[in-house]
Amino acid sequence: MLKKRTAILMMVISLIVGSLLTMFLTGSNSIAGQASSGEGLLASITSGGLKAEETRKIGAAIDLIEGNYYKDIERSALVDGAINGMMEALSDPYSTYMGQETAQQFEESIEGSFSGIGAEVSMEDGNVVVVSPIKGSPAEKAGIRSKDILLSVNGESLAGLELNAAVAKIRGVKGSTASIEVKRNGVAEPIKYAIVRDDVALETVNASLRKDGIGMIEITQFSLNTAERFKEELTNLEKQGMKGLVIDVRNNPGGVLSVVIDITQQFVPKGELIVQVEDKNGKREKSFSKGSSKSYPITLLMNKGSASASEILAGALQQSADVVLVGENSFGKGTVQTSFDRQLGDGSLLKITIAKWLTPDGTWIHEEGIKPDIAVSQPDYFMVAPINKEKTLQFNKNSDDVKSAQVMLDGLGYKPGRVDGYFDVGTQKAVKTFQTSQKIKANGIIDSKTAEALEKVLIEHIQDPLNDTQLKQGIAEVQKEIKAMASKK
Amino acid sequence: MLKKRTAILMMVISLIVGSLLTMFLTGSNSIAGQASSGEGLLASITSGGLKAEETRKIGAAIDLIEGNYYKDIERSALVDGAINGMMEALSDPYSTYMGQETAQQFEESIEGSFSGIGAEVSMEDGNVVVVSPIKGSPAEKAGIRSKDILLSVNGESLAGLELNAAVAKIRGVKGSTASIEVKRNGVAEPIKYAIVRDDVALETVNASLRKDGIGMIEITQFSLNTAERFKEELTNLEKQGMKGLVIDVRNNPGGVLSVVIDITQQFVPKGELIVQVEDKNGKREKSFSKGSSKSYPITLLMNKGSASASEILAGALQQSADVVLVGENSFGKGTVQTSFDRQLGDGSLLKITIAKWLTPDGTWIHEEGIKPDIAVSQPDYFMVAPINKEKTLQFNKNSDDVKSAQVMLDGLGYKPGRVDGYFDVGTQKAVKTFQTSQKIKANGIIDSKTAEALEKVLIEHIQDPLNDTQLKQGIAEVQKEIKAMASKK
Repeated sequence: MLKKRTAILMMVISLIVGSLLTMFLTGSNSIAGQASSGEGLLASITSGGLKAEETRKIGAAIDLIEGNYYKDIERSALVDGAINGMMEALSDPYSTYMGQETAQQFEESIEGSFSGIGAEVSMEDGNVVVVSPIKGSPAEKAGIRSKDILLSVNGESLAGLELNAAVAKIRGVKGSTASIEVKRNGVAEPIKYAIVRDDVALETVNASLRKDGIGMIEITQFSLNTAERFKEELTNLEKQGMKGLVIDVRNNPGGVLSVVIDITQQFVPKGELIVQVEDKNGKREKSFSKGSSKSYPITLLMNKGSASASEILAGALQQSADVVLVGENSFGKGTVQTSFDRQLGDGSLLKITIAKWLTPDGTWIHEEGIKPDIAVSQPDYFMVAPINKEKTLQFNKNSDDVKSAQVMLDGLGYKPGRVDGYFDVGTQKAVKTFQTSQKIKANGIIDSKTAEALEKVLIEHIQDPLNDTQLKQGIAEVQKEIKAMASKK
Repeated sequence: MLKKRTAILMMVISLIVGSLLTMFLTGSNSIAGQASSGEGLLASITSGGLKAEETRKIGAAIDLIEGNYYKDIERSALVDGAINGMMEALSDPYSTYMGQETAQQFEESIEGSFSGIGAEVSMEDGNVVVVSPIKGSPAEKAGIRSKDILLSVNGESLAGLELNAAVAKIRGVKGSTASIEVKRNGVAEPIKYAIVRDDVALETVNASLRKDGIGMIEITQFSLNTAERFKEELTNLEKQGMKGLVIDVRNNPGGVLSVVIDITQQFVPKGELIVQVEDKNGKREKSFSKGSSKSYPITLLMNKGSASASEILAGALQQSADVVLVGENSFGKGTVQTSFDRQLGDGSLLKITIAKWLTPDGTWIHEEGIKPDIAVSQPDYFMVAPINKEKTLQFNKNSDDVKSAQVMLDGLGYKPGRVDGYFDVGTQKAVKTFQTSQKIKANGIIDSKTAEALEKVLIEHIQDPLNDTQLKQGIAEVQKEIKAMASKK
């Protein structure tokens, strides 16, 4: 569990979730119970097309641009621009036009699978490093290991590439071969692998059971296969005698509406409301649970990165299943989108906001978010900016870098006294104590060596679940309820 | 001269130049020698309009949006969006689509006149305050004075409005009446004026003659009437026996190409190059001077706000008239736009970049700007941020507000020692000295009273031409050359 928690100082970008930073909530499946997008109950297509006067005006503009602009331009770029511009005129960040390539990534993310070798990678010191191969993926089967450095793909070096560019080279269509050279710690010569790319399922559910009987399930996004995976893991935990559950949707940007409804009804009594979808005319379509409630206590962890489908889950669990919400106010996206991927006829796609969704009690949480029952923020050092290592920091300096160092020292318990960027004697003392602990010469000066040590220790500290204050609170709450239930018996 | 210099801490927005922040260089007039826009030699209009496939795709998109979006939308907003989007696809900030209202403001700015009462106003403490009535304007004739507070227009209160919204209420078509209530210092009751709106010429040229015989001409933008006004002022200065000239185009965003050529050739020997305009195919159209050089020395003041036509002036004066450029690197806009205001048929307008312009020696200064011969920046305190007066600043505090205060104290000569935001004993001492000079109790603490006094004194300091280091350098350079010329005789 929680293996995906990323430290601020590390640039861990998964091969898979890169395209999901702006996330959606597609309505096509659950609203109408149909499998293909753009055909939901709420989706209607008029067929008037452009009116003569509109065609004339847009045509006059395209002529003026083409005839006069001082550079050559692709006509298709102007047409794409026109459609982009119409979407922007809506002033709705969730209604967007996607060209062919973006559309494909978007659909992969909905489906929860992509074609590739299946390795989560990050950029470290300019190298493309494997964080971990995905379970059951071609990469894992071939023997790629965590910490392997990927040197080249099909003879093309990855040196000097941005992570996204490197990832683009590694990915490819199903059935094609990626010949990969790998540098492995302790092995002198690069190792060569020929890996046949395949459909790789995106792991969106991570589960574990603590020794005290509390189960934890993290959902990283709601893809088409997520409900099934969730039920698998939940059943598995229950079989092992789970006494309480912590569900974690922190930084979960959302996903497919039917999927989150399916997950939610695992916990909501039959016939109770999960979510209401309200169309332009105020007509509401209500989703009721077909499931049942659980006998064990549950908390849900959320933060300001929990959006859309995550908020449907949070709202329904809070209002219809007595689940305690722990963490931060959620993101606040209260709309439903449908994607139209065939009407434009060239592989491009329109994602359009078609409705609002409301919590069971009828609240529209858009731009407001959902308040946690128990508010817990991560400490400041979870968000601290890295230290610029080209500058040496010492007594009487005053800068944002000093501030970062102070926040780190404070987070690690070295008590610098002030965290406002002024390097005073208290800061100096804290630096010396830290240096001693790291067997660095205790001169009270933060040079690049000390700064690097500070960041390394901080990352380890952040990655340790014991320092995840939100998680700790979520577990404590479940423990408390387990105790209360036991005393009632 | 220099009456338009604005202090950073004051929000002085002129009634007139508000729409000129993004500025243009229209090419229609001078390039082709024709008076109407969109008919220049370089402007050509193809007439293919939208192709069937393009009409179909854009039409499908508009149908999908109209049929599915969760809010009501104006169809015309989508069409405007489409045209905006095509312009954005060019990735050229100077090619833009303007709706009817913006188009009208744009054309007024080119013409250098607008219809209104003719008062420059600013927002101070929530009040709309007259900076000065424009010479010869209806406002001046009616008796509106500097520092008057405008309370209402035609019975509608201006309280609580943003400056732009207030200005919109004050302006109106020529011949209409604005009934204005004014609060004047020392007068108990509001004063009522009925002012008939008229065309008000925008003053783009400010000239003065120093006692030492050095003339100064500031050009605030290059409107259609600017060359004529410039020649008037120049002739006037020459008649008074001007010995040298400082031309000031700092923060001048540009204007009409034919106008800047006309002004430039007052100083460039006949037959010398002023500017070259290069079209898409590399064909160059060269503008040669029909004027003559001057016998007196000239410097030109410019800064990073000097753009477009200002840079044509700077480049030509430097390369073809031996004028010394003083100040900062200029903005770097090396393109020419033409506006097409009839083709769209509804009062809206397309401004399209149609060509590059090059300096006499063939340099394209786009995104580079022009280097000054003598680099002089204004001191940091010209750009200092105001102090947040809700917080009290004192010893051992550390913040951006402390930094602002230190920069102000330093600029005023109170030597706080450090200007990095840490309030040390040096800062405390400087505050006490300042407080004593202002007859405020010298406690070394910056409360709102001290902060306000500091800002007030700083604004006066900035507005004093004696503290304008670029101007001083420009004058010194002219003086030096006058001396050198005298010694040669």
